[in-house]
Amino acid sequence: MSPTASPGRGPKVRTAVLAATIDELSERGYAAFTIDNAAQRAGVHKTTVYRRWPDRETLIAEALTDSLTTEIPIPDTGSVDEDLRALARSLVAWANSASGRAVLAVMVSTAAGLPAPPLSARHVFRDRIRKTLPVVTRAITRGEIPEGTDPAEMVKALVAPIYFRVLITGEPVGDSTADAAAAVALTAARARLFTTS
Amino acid sequence: MSPTASPGRGPKVRTAVLAATIDELSERGYAAFTIDNAAQRAGVHKTTVYRRWPDRETLIAEALTDSLTTEIPIPDTGSVDEDLRALARSLVAWANSASGRAVLAVMVSTAAGLPAPPLSARHVFRDRIRKTLPVVTRAITRGEIPEGTDPAEMVKALVAPIYFRVLITGEPVGDSTADAAAAVALTAARARLFTTS
Repeated sequence: MSPTASPGRGPKVRTAVLAATIDELSERGYAAFTIDNAAQRAGVHKTTVYRRWPDRETLIAEALTDSLTTEIPIPDTGSVDEDLRALARSLVAWANSASGRAVLAVMVSTAAGLPAPPLSARHVFRDRIRKTLPVVTRAITRGEIPEGTDPAEMVKALVAPIYFRVLITGEPVGDSTADAAAAVALTAARARLFTTS
Repeated sequence: MSPTASPGRGPKVRTAVLAATIDELSERGYAAFTIDNAAQRAGVHKTTVYRRWPDRETLIAEALTDSLTTEIPIPDTGSVDEDLRALARSLVAWANSASGRAVLAVMVSTAAGLPAPPLSARHVFRDRIRKTLPVVTRAITRGEIPEGTDPAEMVKALVAPIYFRVLITGEPVGDSTADAAAAVALTAARARLFTTS
């Protein structure tokens, strides 16, 4: 239940404006984003947008929050190999999507010295990493990786090579990037490189 | 020999302005950078700066290029373990320095949707990765890691966890981050995870 929801054509407008916001962010980035462009893209008058979302930060925050909550499938195949590959592949698919590009564009804005974005990179990633930890704890329970493996360290090792390519080297990422990252993370976990104490 | 060098107090002014540019970028970021602030920080009149560097892009490009060429020590200790740790530790030290923060702030500007920065992330990182490849090729020659290890893939695995923390999670990075990254990269290389064909 969104606090901005209203009866009638409200939900449709909300969906259209949030989708247009994601598309604008992914194509133009955070710095160039304007409510006017998002409204035009959604096919609504800008005053309709301003009535619900008083400023661009509020609109962007809601679009990103919505986008993030619907797009983190957590695999549970019974095999750590497959789970890690599935997790990495869904991250790759997300990073290649309009939604992923929009989120990443906003996130790096802090690092680029732009005014604080509505969603801090730190907050989002803590949350995302937290949600994926069961993949690791289940693997420990099944005896596939050592007791004492730090789930957060292992998940960060899994995703770092993907973010590095997307944000730094600009190389394209695909399933082979994902599978390679999964293999490295698993091998390192089995060598007790993420084991605490 | 810089094309902008001139006799007399020229070199001193150049050094002061370029250092001030790095400091301004590291503190304020790319978006907020102005020639006026850099001039003030360097203690010179802004017309002195504009005489040498017609616009902020030219000034920033020269400051970053200067900063990058002086700060990539390539270790050659005779041991792949030690070389990788040294390489990762020097990257960590750089990422924590004013120069590193300045370079990273400009680099992520593309991802944040700002106008193209004077130095593309892709270009800089290709160059940086290229310079560090001998660490891997020497280790192959010494028989410390398998024949056929792809040096670029191994170096990217080494540095990715460090950039991920600096740019995405915002966690502090230190020598332990560097040593952990080195251990993961070496273990994965020995498991032939960076071996081509």
